[in-house]
Amino acid sequence: MKRREFLTGAAAATVAAGAVAGSARAEGNPEVKWRLTSGFPKSLDTIYGAAEVFSKYVSDATEGKFQIQVFAAGEIVGTFQAADAVKQGTVEMSHTAGYYYVGMDPCFAAGAAVPFCLNSRQQNAWLYHGGGSELYNAFLAKHKIYSLPGGNTGTQMGGWFRKEIKTLEDLKGLKMRIAGLAGQTMAKLGVVPQQVPGGEIYPSLERGTIDAAEWVGPYDDEKLGFYKVAPFYYYPGWWEGGLSLHFFINTDKWAELPPHYQAIVTAAAAAANVDMLAKYDAKNPKAIQSLVAAGTQLRPFSTEIMQACYAAAHELYAEISATNADFKTLIDSIIAFRDQEYLWFQVAEYSYDNFMIRGRKK
Amino acid sequence: MKRREFLTGAAAATVAAGAVAGSARAEGNPEVKWRLTSGFPKSLDTIYGAAEVFSKYVSDATEGKFQIQVFAAGEIVGTFQAADAVKQGTVEMSHTAGYYYVGMDPCFAAGAAVPFCLNSRQQNAWLYHGGGSELYNAFLAKHKIYSLPGGNTGTQMGGWFRKEIKTLEDLKGLKMRIAGLAGQTMAKLGVVPQQVPGGEIYPSLERGTIDAAEWVGPYDDEKLGFYKVAPFYYYPGWWEGGLSLHFFINTDKWAELPPHYQAIVTAAAAAANVDMLAKYDAKNPKAIQSLVAAGTQLRPFSTEIMQACYAAAHELYAEISATNADFKTLIDSIIAFRDQEYLWFQVAEYSYDNFMIRGRKK
Repeated sequence: MKRREFLTGAAAATVAAGAVAGSARAEGNPEVKWRLTSGFPKSLDTIYGAAEVFSKYVSDATEGKFQIQVFAAGEIVGTFQAADAVKQGTVEMSHTAGYYYVGMDPCFAAGAAVPFCLNSRQQNAWLYHGGGSELYNAFLAKHKIYSLPGGNTGTQMGGWFRKEIKTLEDLKGLKMRIAGLAGQTMAKLGVVPQQVPGGEIYPSLERGTIDAAEWVGPYDDEKLGFYKVAPFYYYPGWWEGGLSLHFFINTDKWAELPPHYQAIVTAAAAAANVDMLAKYDAKNPKAIQSLVAAGTQLRPFSTEIMQACYAAAHELYAEISATNADFKTLIDSIIAFRDQEYLWFQVAEYSYDNFMIRGRKK
Repeated sequence: MKRREFLTGAAAATVAAGAVAGSARAEGNPEVKWRLTSGFPKSLDTIYGAAEVFSKYVSDATEGKFQIQVFAAGEIVGTFQAADAVKQGTVEMSHTAGYYYVGMDPCFAAGAAVPFCLNSRQQNAWLYHGGGSELYNAFLAKHKIYSLPGGNTGTQMGGWFRKEIKTLEDLKGLKMRIAGLAGQTMAKLGVVPQQVPGGEIYPSLERGTIDAAEWVGPYDDEKLGFYKVAPFYYYPGWWEGGLSLHFFINTDKWAELPPHYQAIVTAAAAAANVDMLAKYDAKNPKAIQSLVAAGTQLRPFSTEIMQACYAAAHELYAEISATNADFKTLIDSIIAFRDQEYLWFQVAEYSYDNFMIRGRKK
């Protein structure tokens, strides 16, 4: 009886007896203790915090009987080992960004963010009601992972640059801290992608070891002080129009949970999902103003650069799809969904925001 | 011991005994049965469905012990009586749009949608992390209501018009089915707001008893066939940039719930919140295309009309604020929050959507 493995003491005996006898004593909330490895440091309190929000919902909903302890990246395993730790059962679950694991398979990025695809609302629509989570989980099952959407950052910024980037020529040879499919896209335009851990970005930019770095958005970026050493803050981060974080759960551990615990975890993940984006949306406005007040110079990527990156990203998708059938299934679904979404978003949603941003000022 | 009132049989005795003795038998999931009156008919499966999604989460999380039965508008009380039914304790809770109750107090609209204010993400940011829910609940407590955000439609459409509306002159004398603060705003520009129940909109438009009507958006509007009798479909619905639905719960009934049931209800409401918007976002794209294929003519409100409505809405806010201190507190908070939000949204979010809508086509 596998269920015994994660139950302790009297609760385990009670549930085991109940499962056999079908008695009323099988009901209620058995004690379960899980470990969650976050893909993020505690300093990213908004993303890291989403795992704590989730864990608190689960604990509160079970009278403290289902405890999920949250560990920061590096406390058990590092960011890039989190998916494998879930796969191996080292931890029961993780809260992380799928695209960190493109080294294992580029499909991992599909549920998180791929360049020039879905914004945050469209991510939720695709995942919850566009067949996205089903497709993503069909792929993840090969790695013994079951996923639930668990947060979103909204459209991220394009990052910090020591010099202005005006033309495609300015991208050639640029050493930029940027990873995954975004790095591979940039590489097609001559950028030299660099892997630099969060804590080393600032000194690398200061020394000029790198010329540019992307991180998240105003609220997180301000804390790291990049504006002091790289004054040009570009937008938008076209490689993550709406990054979805996910809870990754080991499929065996998931199957062992009583159905009502599965329901609680599912609702808590969705609650953490909407909560995290709301927190970013509440915190970013002050941060962008404070960054500008401190001398940050906001710059949009030129249409020429955006269009070249758009073409490069879709070239990359075709290349990966040629040898990776799962990726082709996922990216075809995302792109078809995106094209439908923007047909609609341009009507009511975009025209409302457009008026609120530009029209009402006149 | 009030808790007994909503518990039945053995479970009630167990919890009551537990509450006194603090014994282990107080734990677990007592039987609770609640009734929820939806503000919507079953035909609006996306909005009405959010209450069912919520109810299922609560039932599943409690092994079926906490049952919340969902009734469509009119089965117990009608849409416009739902808030009062919660206040009086006729039902334990409702799922509805606060702005239906501006007749009781215009403050009811503040948590739902007020013209030219927040889009859907900004609504969540204000409610969850901008002090919005605290302010809204401080007001609602006077009506014995505790609220939790429970869904969003996104920016709605501006509605169906039998004739084109090109200038402010065209609004004068226009009989439009539009309610609440939006109706009062329109009235300042000469529109004659009409109260017409959903089922009577079509025949009223057909007969010409009314000249225009707003409902929700493509997915819901298509079902009612308005395009056959009023071909001009205007956008955006500036009176609801992101309508938040709410769960309204009687404060006494809320206080009686065990803390872990409160946690489950809170998580389930948040889960229903993100789920409902995702469902609309997944369903609207096909509907707008099908409406256009059937002959619907999309028209944006002119900037002149938008600006005049914007000014009229803010004039209305000043008038109501002069005699209603609660409304002034709420609207001042919303407007200050909105102005900060759009400073940020215009950077990464808006420029990303702008490129995806316009730039990538070139």
